[in-house]
Amino acid sequence: MEKNILIVDDDRRILKSFKDILEPEGYSVDTAETALEAVEKCRARPYNLAIIDIKLRDVDGTDLLAQVHEILPRARKIMITGYPSLENAVDSVNLQADAYIIKPVNPDTFLKVVAESMDKQLEAEQMTEDKVVGWVESRYDETRRNRSKRKPMGPELLPNAEE
Amino acid sequence: MEKNILIVDDDRRILKSFKDILEPEGYSVDTAETALEAVEKCRARPYNLAIIDIKLRDVDGTDLLAQVHEILPRARKIMITGYPSLENAVDSVNLQADAYIIKPVNPDTFLKVVAESMDKQLEAEQMTEDKVVGWVESRYDETRRNRSKRKPMGPELLPNAEE
Repeated sequence: MEKNILIVDDDRRILKSFKDILEPEGYSVDTAETALEAVEKCRARPYNLAIIDIKLRDVDGTDLLAQVHEILPRARKIMITGYPSLENAVDSVNLQADAYIIKPVNPDTFLKVVAESMDKQLEAEQMTEDKVVGWVESRYDETRRNRSKRKPMGPELLPNAEE
Repeated sequence: MEKNILIVDDDRRILKSFKDILEPEGYSVDTAETALEAVEKCRARPYNLAIIDIKLRDVDGTDLLAQVHEILPRARKIMITGYPSLENAVDSVNLQADAYIIKPVNPDTFLKVVAESMDKQLEAEQMTEDKVVGWVESRYDETRRNRSKRKPMGPELLPNAEE
């Protein structure tokens, strides 16, 4: 199962260090240095997870959060910042972030938050599919029961057709 | 369509005032004064929305948020507080709150946040159902096409059976 992550940060060294932490764990990682680039990438590929720094060059990370949420409502969004504030934390809740990490963050904590978010995202997709399969099966059973009650048998099922 | 809301606050006057704002708008409102009572009610009824005050008598509202999220993962959760802090805002993000409102809140703003959260909740349920219906229909069409290719016609479809 693919585990696609987009990381958005205006600092290339940070992008590289997160990529180096995530890729050995089996994640497929894209990066973006600006909100504009991030939006283009989100339109092109349904990421499971977006990790967004709150201070970007072109816009506030919370504004980008809102845009990513609109393009990819089912993706999980992790906000990350070296400048935590009540305001940007409240914005993060209200704009549908799934996690808020304060820098500096140690690699183990970072991987734990990413793994939990990814698990929840894949589980939510899976639940939708299971619900679909459940419905299909119950409709199929019901249709078959109804058909066996009312439908005349085709020639291949009549006793003399078998012999 | 039912729009069920649970409000949790240890102040009865606040519960009554929120109830008085919400019920005329067509919401069905239950209240709880403690986290314990809230958990019992969530187990008994699948609320669309829970509105949780962050200061409760028995536990922190953010702890209750985590419990409500576990019992009712698809319900929307709105945190409300007269004591906003970076810590409880960050906890609210990380424990999957959908909104964070700072008291005092005027009734119009409150109703707007509730209406938006309710719309998103109902839309998410609807999307799941639409996806189910879409799958059922496409599987049905495919099954019918396959059947018409391989299955001999039953007597009711033979030309002489029609006349």
